[in-house]
Amino acid sequence: MSFLKPSAAPKKRVYADAAASTPISARARRELSRLLPLYGNPGALHAEGVSAKKELERARASVAASVGAHADEIVFTASGTESNNLAIQGLLREGLTFAGLRRSDLRDIHAITSEIEHPSVLEPLRALKRDGLELTELPVDREGFVSPKELAENIKDNTVFILIQFINSEVGTVQPIKEIAKEIRKSGKKIYLHCDASQAPLWMKMNVEQLHVDLMTLDAQKILGPKGVGALYIKRGTPIEAVMRGGWQERGLRGGTENVPLAGAFAAALQDARSGAEKRARKIGAVRDYLWNEIKKLLPDAILHGPRIARVANNLNVSIPGLDGDMAVIAMDAVGIAISTRSACSTGDEKPSHVLKAIGLSDEQAHGSLRLSISKYTTEQEIDKVLEVLPNIIKKLRKISPFDKIIEILPK
Amino acid sequence: MSFLKPSAAPKKRVYADAAASTPISARARRELSRLLPLYGNPGALHAEGVSAKKELERARASVAASVGAHADEIVFTASGTESNNLAIQGLLREGLTFAGLRRSDLRDIHAITSEIEHPSVLEPLRALKRDGLELTELPVDREGFVSPKELAENIKDNTVFILIQFINSEVGTVQPIKEIAKEIRKSGKKIYLHCDASQAPLWMKMNVEQLHVDLMTLDAQKILGPKGVGALYIKRGTPIEAVMRGGWQERGLRGGTENVPLAGAFAAALQDARSGAEKRARKIGAVRDYLWNEIKKLLPDAILHGPRIARVANNLNVSIPGLDGDMAVIAMDAVGIAISTRSACSTGDEKPSHVLKAIGLSDEQAHGSLRLSISKYTTEQEIDKVLEVLPNIIKKLRKISPFDKIIEILPK
Repeated sequence: MSFLKPSAAPKKRVYADAAASTPISARARRELSRLLPLYGNPGALHAEGVSAKKELERARASVAASVGAHADEIVFTASGTESNNLAIQGLLREGLTFAGLRRSDLRDIHAITSEIEHPSVLEPLRALKRDGLELTELPVDREGFVSPKELAENIKDNTVFILIQFINSEVGTVQPIKEIAKEIRKSGKKIYLHCDASQAPLWMKMNVEQLHVDLMTLDAQKILGPKGVGALYIKRGTPIEAVMRGGWQERGLRGGTENVPLAGAFAAALQDARSGAEKRARKIGAVRDYLWNEIKKLLPDAILHGPRIARVANNLNVSIPGLDGDMAVIAMDAVGIAISTRSACSTGDEKPSHVLKAIGLSDEQAHGSLRLSISKYTTEQEIDKVLEVLPNIIKKLRKISPFDKIIEILPK
Repeated sequence: MSFLKPSAAPKKRVYADAAASTPISARARRELSRLLPLYGNPGALHAEGVSAKKELERARASVAASVGAHADEIVFTASGTESNNLAIQGLLREGLTFAGLRRSDLRDIHAITSEIEHPSVLEPLRALKRDGLELTELPVDREGFVSPKELAENIKDNTVFILIQFINSEVGTVQPIKEIAKEIRKSGKKIYLHCDASQAPLWMKMNVEQLHVDLMTLDAQKILGPKGVGALYIKRGTPIEAVMRGGWQERGLRGGTENVPLAGAFAAALQDARSGAEKRARKIGAVRDYLWNEIKKLLPDAILHGPRIARVANNLNVSIPGLDGDMAVIAMDAVGIAISTRSACSTGDEKPSHVLKAIGLSDEQAHGSLRLSISKYTTEQEIDKVLEVLPNIIKKLRKISPFDKIIEILPK
């Protein structure tokens, strides 16, 4: 990479893609190691099964306590994506009955979500729409906020389910969940509220009673836990049924042998995340603000996307006119800095980010945006390394065409 | 436990419930540890993402090679249960189109399975039946075999999907998959064949080309791999779509961040399982035969359930007149021996095993049956420990009522 002096590359890599996935913490890893020998099937009557079952229920109680729920309101899944799919398909297609009389016909019911939800919320909802569900995808404002008032105006007689994420993973918008819940209560209708809180536990207050949600998605791999485990909070009395059918694990809501090592490691990671979340958010928010202020000094035409306040502490989303985002990611990577342009779940999708389009960006602006999602470990020294190389990379990338010269910026 | 001398308890526990779940092998655990630090999201463009993606594709190629498939025919899932649900819901409800014209209407199509499939096959099929699918659950003979001829007679004009397991987890029956595939080919119809092979890799020859299957389920936790990962083999051209929707991971067939550590550990376990499977089956089959012959000598009224030949090497299912199975499991556990009565996925179900009922057992016989599924590590010395305590336990249990005296046999 001819234009970057080797000295510009930090010795230790800087990881600023925590919204895509976090490392596993030492404590979560220790918990995983401790539980791996408990291989018994928790459904079995023998000691191997019973000791596994005991740890499973201990993990469930811990996850429940971390979000202010009852243990019997927590269903373990394999991911945030699975939790979202269980909430949507499990409630709307498999479970929803009114007055206990019959399964609902999708053509009779209406759901509301926002345009900027994660694909694991939008795609299952759109698949049900294809089968008859009436679906409203609410627009958001230029900072990514859903308007509780506009949401209330969209509630109809047949509205049964509303799904709004806690934090947008691309632009960091913290949605007004409590106000949305209040509008639902004001409507006087029995409408279930789901909140995808995958990105929230490290940074936000989050108690299911205070948020007034009926369902909430959690994901271990976004909070320094292992990959392969998540949970769905399901308030008692919510009419939901299994999507993945088989044995009667998880009170019949999710077939498949329970995964004790991953559940235990997830519980430990969630406990650590919840502990001191507000203090952590202040500290990392200050690091993030320092990064943005310095970028703004170095590159005065940089534009911030997403909110200035009510923004998650670790997220920065900027676009720099004339820059190709993917090329910047590759160039930054070559000097030891991991950033992204958008949700990794959209990789392979050639279209610009649906989130950035929804907040009003042009295709060009969306293609030029960079997401820096720092971790709870990120220091100002690491940020200085980013600031040391970023302007130079931007300067060079702006001069070359994104199509015929990409080869020049790739490492040899 | 008054009637058992403490000396009767083996010092090291004997684990004979391998069909419910196996320990994780040292190699699979090492592979898991090696890959845990690769936390990058495989969808990301940076080095953390790329190195994770590389390992993911290496694991996929290894799993494919282990069963004679192409790498692009392997979709990683979180379990055997998920693989079965993806095959069933993904093909019948989400994916099946004829002549590319439209999604099929469930009321137009017919599927065939057997009465003794695992709940993760029967329950999703029955849920689709509720929504209109025409479903035939074939009976089996007294040894648990599906008749290929009878299956062929049940093929109709609208039959599109046939699902038969490789090995029954309760009575060990090895189904004639090749003969079933031959009958399907003879029918001249395009019918997709799915085989749940979760119990097979340690013991059987299993090449997808030779078996002529279109879909096949694999599960790591039954073959000394970790819990939380499985795979579905999907032959190229099979019209299947995602059930868990979200990002475009797994070629769009399964949303959710890919789990590189578990995929790698699974690939290692599968490779080890496939290596020397036939020799292993002969060795462990001999240990199992020794166990059965000795039981028969000690307890002449013991009855073997399932086949005498074409039975998986590590399975024994016996009933002993007058015995309550659950009580025997608890009593054996107290002296250090882990066995079961049936599939752990049916725990909490008060009804007798659907498998044992289907092969013609009375409720009483089914309640009195014991499943001993030994592992690849089980030795004749361990079997001797089982034989040392089993007759005494049986003798005592037969004398006491299963209801008012269960407390007597529980450890203090």
